[in-house]
Amino acid sequence: MIQRFEHGGNVYQPSPKGKAWLDFSANINPLGLSPAVRQALAAHLDQVVHYPDPAGTALRQALEQAYGVPGGSIVLGNGAAELFYLYMHTFRPQRVLLPVPSFSEYERAARAAGAVVDYGYLKEDDGFAFPWKELRQACGQSDCIVLGNPNNPTGTLAAADEIMALAEVGARKGTDILVDESFLDFLESDEAYSVLRQAWDRDNLFVIRSLTKFYALPGLRLGFGVTSPLRRGLMEGHKDVWNVNVLAQYAGVAGLRDRAYQQASRQLVQQEKEWLYGQMKKIPGLCVYPPCVNFIFWKLTGDGARTADLAEVLKAQGLLIRDCANYPGLSAAYGRTAVRTHEENERFVALLAENIR
Amino acid sequence: MIQRFEHGGNVYQPSPKGKAWLDFSANINPLGLSPAVRQALAAHLDQVVHYPDPAGTALRQALEQAYGVPGGSIVLGNGAAELFYLYMHTFRPQRVLLPVPSFSEYERAARAAGAVVDYGYLKEDDGFAFPWKELRQACGQSDCIVLGNPNNPTGTLAAADEIMALAEVGARKGTDILVDESFLDFLESDEAYSVLRQAWDRDNLFVIRSLTKFYALPGLRLGFGVTSPLRRGLMEGHKDVWNVNVLAQYAGVAGLRDRAYQQASRQLVQQEKEWLYGQMKKIPGLCVYPPCVNFIFWKLTGDGARTADLAEVLKAQGLLIRDCANYPGLSAAYGRTAVRTHEENERFVALLAENIR
Repeated sequence: MIQRFEHGGNVYQPSPKGKAWLDFSANINPLGLSPAVRQALAAHLDQVVHYPDPAGTALRQALEQAYGVPGGSIVLGNGAAELFYLYMHTFRPQRVLLPVPSFSEYERAARAAGAVVDYGYLKEDDGFAFPWKELRQACGQSDCIVLGNPNNPTGTLAAADEIMALAEVGARKGTDILVDESFLDFLESDEAYSVLRQAWDRDNLFVIRSLTKFYALPGLRLGFGVTSPLRRGLMEGHKDVWNVNVLAQYAGVAGLRDRAYQQASRQLVQQEKEWLYGQMKKIPGLCVYPPCVNFIFWKLTGDGARTADLAEVLKAQGLLIRDCANYPGLSAAYGRTAVRTHEENERFVALLAENIR
Repeated sequence: MIQRFEHGGNVYQPSPKGKAWLDFSANINPLGLSPAVRQALAAHLDQVVHYPDPAGTALRQALEQAYGVPGGSIVLGNGAAELFYLYMHTFRPQRVLLPVPSFSEYERAARAAGAVVDYGYLKEDDGFAFPWKELRQACGQSDCIVLGNPNNPTGTLAAADEIMALAEVGARKGTDILVDESFLDFLESDEAYSVLRQAWDRDNLFVIRSLTKFYALPGLRLGFGVTSPLRRGLMEGHKDVWNVNVLAQYAGVAGLRDRAYQQASRQLVQQEKEWLYGQMKKIPGLCVYPPCVNFIFWKLTGDGARTADLAEVLKAQGLLIRDCANYPGLSAAYGRTAVRTHEENERFVALLAENIR
């Protein structure tokens, strides 16, 4: 039985024959740590005897340069996930609208802060696209709408224009738009999709980015959010000043400067996602949704086929996938898998083809 | 001008002549990292590509063994500071009573969650001891009373018996007792003072410990709290499951097992605090309070003497102390300094004696 808020990526469970898990359940950069990041970590190990810089000055400057947003609008997070809770605890929206299926931490954070959560079910027939007209109409009734872009697990991309049009309506009607852009770094260009650079002076727009997926640092925790300086200040008051650890700060700075790694990562993911998509489409009994970043969403089409059963079989062979049965709006037949290195992807495709009935 | 919630330990400001700060403003174990912890960090650097264990299983077991509290009653924190915010955001006490002066994050966290904060001014004539009778009488009026044990910055120790008597009254009257035992690991025996092992089945008692001070890990962030499983469960729902990073988890396990380091740390701190106390008492113009752990509280007795002025002079010579003027209930003449290695303490005493007028 899958728990309602369970996630992928738990490699701490014992694996068959004691071998390392082949983890397709967590969407982490298949290149692993950037050499520059690894070096920064090793070089600064002894700095953990000091408190983290409460202002996060060096990291803030690196983010300013990398993303073109003013440092005074940036909230630093102990991972992107912390920022969902920080937003909810700070502003305590009474009614939160979640287009679903989506990342379960949105709901968990909203409920923690006492919000009533309304689901807006995305339609499979529309490729799980956001229903913009309905979302605009919901402004005023909902205090906050949370959008994943791309949405997780469906992989659907939203256009920046549509999000900004929604944010404009929200600004007039008192509705916040929270956009989770945790995977956008994997795109060659995020220009048509990202609203990060529009958020720095907007009170009702909060855009969250993760550095743990693209820089393969989920164990270190690092994320940031952009909104108006006013709203940023309010959020800073709801957490202690040391929430981002010293090593995450050094790693972030090193990663943001490592252009070669960034380029190689995007190239690998773009290439492998196409290859994987092409291969998976050929497997009978599988409907595959077009991927845009480093994960692929799919559905078993066989009569009564359950991803949980497939996941169990693959797990016995040392491979983890993400069963999506615990997402609201999805049946037991949905799954999500990461895009990894070519060799790992080959193994995954072979195992998948073998085990889908 | 000191800001109201400013802390010590900010070594990121530029130092004179570019030399490393001699930091007496943060209360960190002067031995630095345990060799076992350092080795654990170096050995597990590459594990940051995985999410942290959401259950924190190994760390939880190590804490169980080290402190004799059941793992099901333990909340793991991204530093002890996170746990103040987590408690306040989860339970949202309307009225919080703070015996002051005390660590400013108690107040900041309480206010963040919307509490009205009442100060109970501790009396200098009583050595800043907690007024137990008054605190028991305040139960029912206050939803939560926060006690630092030892209290920071005064260094006053409270007896476990008194705290438990207060917790009993609180249980009847609906008042939570939050006890911050962040520095108790520095004592040879905490038995007469700690209520950690009494908290595991009590809904109205939440006891917080830090591992960053004793294990010299403030940059990594690690703390934990103990309360009833019911209340622990409620707090777990108010944060994401990855809040304690992978390296902090490995470091915690290694530190908790390193008995030799623990013993050496306690021995050094006990010895040096006595030496430092003895030396400081001889300095004219300085009133020194008896220390119990790794920091010493003091007051300038000269007419109109301000710790801010002294701090500035010492800063120009590369030494940081903690001006306590921003603590409610304290005048501009108070200060706090850490206990460090003998060599550093000697230098500190010499500089202090030279610069107090």
